[in-house]
Amino acid sequence: MPSYIAPVKDMQFLLHDVLKVSAADIPGYGDLDRGFTGAVLEEAGKVASDILTPLNAVGDREGCVLENGVVRTPAGFKAAFDTLRAGGWMALDAPEDFGGQGLPYLMHTVVNETFVSANMAFNMYQGLTHGAVSAILAHGTEDQKARWLPKMVSCEWTGTMNLTEPHCGTDLGMMRTKADPQADGSYKITGQKIFISAGDHDLAENIVHLVLAKAPGGGEGTKGISLFIVPKVLVNDDGSLGAPNALSCGKIEDKMGIHGNATCVMNYDGATGWLLGDLHKGMRAMFTMMNEARLGVGLQGYAVAEAAYQNALAYAKDRLQGRDVTGAKNPDGPADPLIVHPDIRRNLMEQKSFVEGARAFTFWGATLIDRHVRMEDAAADGLVGLMTPVLKGFLTDKGFEMAVQAQQVFGGHGYIEEWGMSQFARDARIAMIYEGANGVQALDLVGRKLASDGGKHVVAFFDMVKAEVKAHEGDPRMAGFAEPLKAASKQLQAAGMYFMANGMKNPNAALAGSYDFMHLMGHVCLGLMWTRMAKAAHVALDEGAADRSFYETKIATGRFYMARQLPACGMHLARIETGADPVMALAVEAF
Amino acid sequence: MPSYIAPVKDMQFLLHDVLKVSAADIPGYGDLDRGFTGAVLEEAGKVASDILTPLNAVGDREGCVLENGVVRTPAGFKAAFDTLRAGGWMALDAPEDFGGQGLPYLMHTVVNETFVSANMAFNMYQGLTHGAVSAILAHGTEDQKARWLPKMVSCEWTGTMNLTEPHCGTDLGMMRTKADPQADGSYKITGQKIFISAGDHDLAENIVHLVLAKAPGGGEGTKGISLFIVPKVLVNDDGSLGAPNALSCGKIEDKMGIHGNATCVMNYDGATGWLLGDLHKGMRAMFTMMNEARLGVGLQGYAVAEAAYQNALAYAKDRLQGRDVTGAKNPDGPADPLIVHPDIRRNLMEQKSFVEGARAFTFWGATLIDRHVRMEDAAADGLVGLMTPVLKGFLTDKGFEMAVQAQQVFGGHGYIEEWGMSQFARDARIAMIYEGANGVQALDLVGRKLASDGGKHVVAFFDMVKAEVKAHEGDPRMAGFAEPLKAASKQLQAAGMYFMANGMKNPNAALAGSYDFMHLMGHVCLGLMWTRMAKAAHVALDEGAADRSFYETKIATGRFYMARQLPACGMHLARIETGADPVMALAVEAF
Repeated sequence: MPSYIAPVKDMQFLLHDVLKVSAADIPGYGDLDRGFTGAVLEEAGKVASDILTPLNAVGDREGCVLENGVVRTPAGFKAAFDTLRAGGWMALDAPEDFGGQGLPYLMHTVVNETFVSANMAFNMYQGLTHGAVSAILAHGTEDQKARWLPKMVSCEWTGTMNLTEPHCGTDLGMMRTKADPQADGSYKITGQKIFISAGDHDLAENIVHLVLAKAPGGGEGTKGISLFIVPKVLVNDDGSLGAPNALSCGKIEDKMGIHGNATCVMNYDGATGWLLGDLHKGMRAMFTMMNEARLGVGLQGYAVAEAAYQNALAYAKDRLQGRDVTGAKNPDGPADPLIVHPDIRRNLMEQKSFVEGARAFTFWGATLIDRHVRMEDAAADGLVGLMTPVLKGFLTDKGFEMAVQAQQVFGGHGYIEEWGMSQFARDARIAMIYEGANGVQALDLVGRKLASDGGKHVVAFFDMVKAEVKAHEGDPRMAGFAEPLKAASKQLQAAGMYFMANGMKNPNAALAGSYDFMHLMGHVCLGLMWTRMAKAAHVALDEGAADRSFYETKIATGRFYMARQLPACGMHLARIETGADPVMALAVEAF
Repeated sequence: MPSYIAPVKDMQFLLHDVLKVSAADIPGYGDLDRGFTGAVLEEAGKVASDILTPLNAVGDREGCVLENGVVRTPAGFKAAFDTLRAGGWMALDAPEDFGGQGLPYLMHTVVNETFVSANMAFNMYQGLTHGAVSAILAHGTEDQKARWLPKMVSCEWTGTMNLTEPHCGTDLGMMRTKADPQADGSYKITGQKIFISAGDHDLAENIVHLVLAKAPGGGEGTKGISLFIVPKVLVNDDGSLGAPNALSCGKIEDKMGIHGNATCVMNYDGATGWLLGDLHKGMRAMFTMMNEARLGVGLQGYAVAEAAYQNALAYAKDRLQGRDVTGAKNPDGPADPLIVHPDIRRNLMEQKSFVEGARAFTFWGATLIDRHVRMEDAAADGLVGLMTPVLKGFLTDKGFEMAVQAQQVFGGHGYIEEWGMSQFARDARIAMIYEGANGVQALDLVGRKLASDGGKHVVAFFDMVKAEVKAHEGDPRMAGFAEPLKAASKQLQAAGMYFMANGMKNPNAALAGSYDFMHLMGHVCLGLMWTRMAKAAHVALDEGAADRSFYETKIATGRFYMARQLPACGMHLARIETGADPVMALAVEAF
C-alpha cells in the first residue's frame, strides 16, 4: 500500500527562503514565522500520513453507496472527518467571526496540499465546503452569513456547487433548472444537476447546495442565471434543523477514480432556496470564486503527482533489477536497484522537478490571492486571473502525466490495483476535466485573459520575467537558469505576437494554438519559479545554511527542469505558428 | 455504449495504394488483391462490430472470476470465442499443414487490428495462442508440432507465455522456477509465475503454457534458462486429454484495465513439461518471437486509440456546446456541435493523424516480418528488429495519450464508466508496460539495436528516408512532406551522432537520452509513412480516383501531422544533447 510523508522541508523552503512570507507586506503574513508554519505543517503532515493515507485505498475500493435514499461513504471516512473537524483543520483561513482561524489563504493552500496528496477523494468533502463558504462570504447578506457560515466553517454542514446539467456543462447558457419566486422571498428550485461532487453523504448533518438556476425575467443564455442556497435540510429560525427539503440524490456515478467521493445526480423537485447575491448575476458570482477553485484543482494535479512520486522513488530504490552499465552498484546483491538506470532517473527527475516547480507556482498564486483579498490589490488580482488557466490546465495535465510516469516505474505491478499506483493515475485524471476542462482553460487564457484590461497583466508578467532574468545577468552560477528562461519567455512573447498579428483577422488562428500556448506559458512559469528557487538556494548556501545537501539538490533539480523541460517551448511555438490551417483544413464531413 | 466500425477503406488504401501488396515480390502476396482483402476485412469488421464490440464493456464490468479453482470469463466470451473459432479467424496465417489458412502475417495483423479495437481483452486469448504457435513452429520438433499445433491453431487449445516472477520481470536472469530432468526425457517444473495473460479460463479445453525455467547445468543468469511446453491437461499419445497437470491458477489480478482477460498467478508444483528448442537457449527462443509479439503490442496501442477516436469524433459531432467564434454553424439549435471549436479540432486531428500514421507503420512492419519469414531476407529482419522498439514503445505511449485525449472530448462524461471512454484509457495503459516496459524498449533501441550488425540497419533506414525525400524534390505538392521529413531525419541523425561521440566515453550520455530518441525516431517513422501516404494519395487523384474526398482528406491529415507533430523532434534532440549530467546529477540519497 502506498505511503505518504508531507514534504515539510520543501514547503518551508518556499514559504521562508523563496516567498519570505513573514517579511511580506500582506496583512496576516507577519505571523507566519518559520516556527509557526513548521509546527502547523508537521501536525498537518501527521494527520495526512496517519489518518488520511490509510483511507485512500479503502475509499477507492469501497466507493460510495446509495441505498434506500441514503449515501454511505467508505468505512472510516466519518471518523476521520470528525477528527479533522475537531482539530480545526477545515477552518484555517475562514474569518474568526464565523469560527475560523483567520489565517491567510496561503496557509490553507499549503495544508490542503498534504491532505490532497494523502487522500484526494476524501479531501473534496471539505474542499467543496471551502468553496461554498467563500461564495457566501463574498455574496451573502449578513443574515445569510450568520445563518450558514458558522456550521459550514466548522464542517458540521458541508457545501456543494451545482452547475452542470445533462445537456450542458461548459455552455451554461442552456441551463434548464428553474427558480420560481415565492411570496415569502424564497424560490422553488426545480431541475436536475449532474456531476455534483460531495452531493450527498453521511459525514455531516446538513449539506448546503449552491445551485445555479434560471429565475424569470433574466433573458436568454447565461444572463438569466442566478445563484441559490438550497439546503438538504431546512433550518429553523433558531438554527435547529427542520424538515427535509424537496431534493434528493438520484444516483451515484461510477467513475474512473476518486471513488471515495460521492459524485451525485441531484434532483431538485421544487426545493426551497434563497437567492445568493444579485438576481440574474449568478454567473458573475461564480466567477469571483473561480480563481480559488481552479487554483485548488491545479493543486490536486501536482499533489497527487507528489504522492505518486514518493512511492515511485521508494520502489526505484528498493526494487533490484538489472545492472548499472557503468559498473555494479550493489555487487553483493542479485541486481542493482532500479534507480541506477538512466531512464529511471530521467523519469524520476521529470516527476521531482515538475512537482517542486508546481508547488512553487501554486504557493505564489495563493499569495496573489491573499494580496488581492487582504489588500484589494487589483494588479495581483489581474495577475492571478491571468495565471489561473495555466495553474489549472498545465498543472493538471502534467500532474496526470507524472502520475502515469510514476506508475510506469513499477512495471507490471503498476497496473495491479493492489499496489495503489493505478489509483493515483485514475484520481489525477479528473482534475484535467472538472472545474472547466483544460481545453476551456486554454480558451479562457488565449480568448480572454491575454487581452483583458488592455493586455496589461500579460505585459506585467513579461516585465516580471525580464526583471528576473536581468537580476542574474553576469552571475555565472545562475546562467543555467536565466538564459533558458530568457529564451523561453521570448518564445512565449513570439507566440503572443503571432496571435496579435493573426487572431484579429481570424480568431481560429489564435484558438488553434491555445492549448500549446497554455503549455508554453506553463513552462515559462515553472522556469521562473525554478530561477527564483535556485537563487534562494544559492543565497542560503552563501549564508552558510546547515543543510547544504538540500539546497544543492534544489539547484540540481532546477537545472534539470531548465535543461530538459524548457525545450518544449520551442515545439509549442512552432506548432502555434502553423496557425489555423492544418487544424481546420477538413470539412466536418471529411472526418 | 461505444461503437466501432472497422476502417476498411483506410486499410485497403494502405494495402493497395501504399504497400501495393499484390504486386510485391513476397510469396503469398500475389493473392492479396483488392477484392480478396476487401472481402476478408468486411467480414472481420462485422465480427468486430457485431460480436466483439458489445462484449467490451461487459468484460470490463464483470472481469474474470476464480472460484473453486475454476476461472470464469465474462458472460458471452465463451460463445463469442466459439464463433470466432468456427469462422477460422484464429488461424489466418498458420501453416495449412496444421489447419491454418497460410495467409501472410500481414493479413493476420490487419484483421487483428479490428479485433483489438473492438475488444482488446477478449482478443488476447487468441493473441497469446498465436504467439505460442509461432514459438512451437520455430523451435518445436516434428513430434511436438504434430502433437500441439493442430489444436492450438484452431484455438481448441490456447497458449500462454510464462516469463515474469514476483521478484523479476525485465531481469530474467534472477529467475527461480526450476526444471528437473526426468528419466523419460520430460521435466518437472516448479515455481511461481505472475502476470500470465490468459493464464486460465473456460474458453478452451486445454491451455498450453510455454514456461521459462532453469534446468541444471546452464550456469548463472539468463544462460541457464530453457523454454518448456507445460500443458494444463496432459495429453495422451492418441491425442485425447489425460490427467490434469500439477499446476494451478493461484489468483487473478485486480487490474486497472483489460478486466476481461484473466491475468493469473500460475503455480507450477512439479508440473510435467517438455523442452522446447535447445537446452539453456530459452532466452534466444523467446527473442525469435519478440518482433512479432512487440509489433502486436504496438498495434494494441493505436488500435484502442482508433476505437476511442471513433467515439470521440461521434460525440464531437453530436454534442451541442458553445458557438463557433467565426459565426454560428447550427443557428437554429441551442448551440453548435463541439467539432466547430478549434481546440476540439486540434485534439481530433492529433488522434486521427496519429492512428492513421501508426497503422501505416505497423502494416509496413508486418511486411518486413513476412519478407524475413517467407524470403529469409536478412535486411528486412535487421530493419524490423531496429523498428520493433519504436513500434512497441512509441505507438503504445502515443496510443494511450490519444485514448486519454479522446476521453477528454467527452468532458465529465469521459470520466464516467458508463460512457466507455475510461475503459479505452485504462485498457491502453497496459500496452506501455507489458512485453517489455517502454523504458526497456528505449534501452533496447539505443543500447543494442542502433549498433547491431555494425550499425548497418540504421544506416539503411536513413538511406531509405533520404531516398524518399529525394524522390519528391521539386514537387511543390509534396513540399509540406519532404521538407519536414528531411529536417526531422537530420535531427534524428544528429541525435545518433551525439550518442556516437559521447556514449563510448560515458554510456549514460546515450542512455539518458534513450527515451527521447525512441520518440524522435517514432516521429520520423510516422513522417516517412505520411510522406508515402500523401504521395500515394496524389497518384490516386492524378489517376482519377472516384473517391476524391478520401484522398484529399488523407493529404490534409498528413499535412497536419508534418506541421504540428514533427516539431517534437527538435525538442527531443535538444533534450538528448544535454547528455547525462542533468539526469544523473543527484546522488541516490539526495532524492
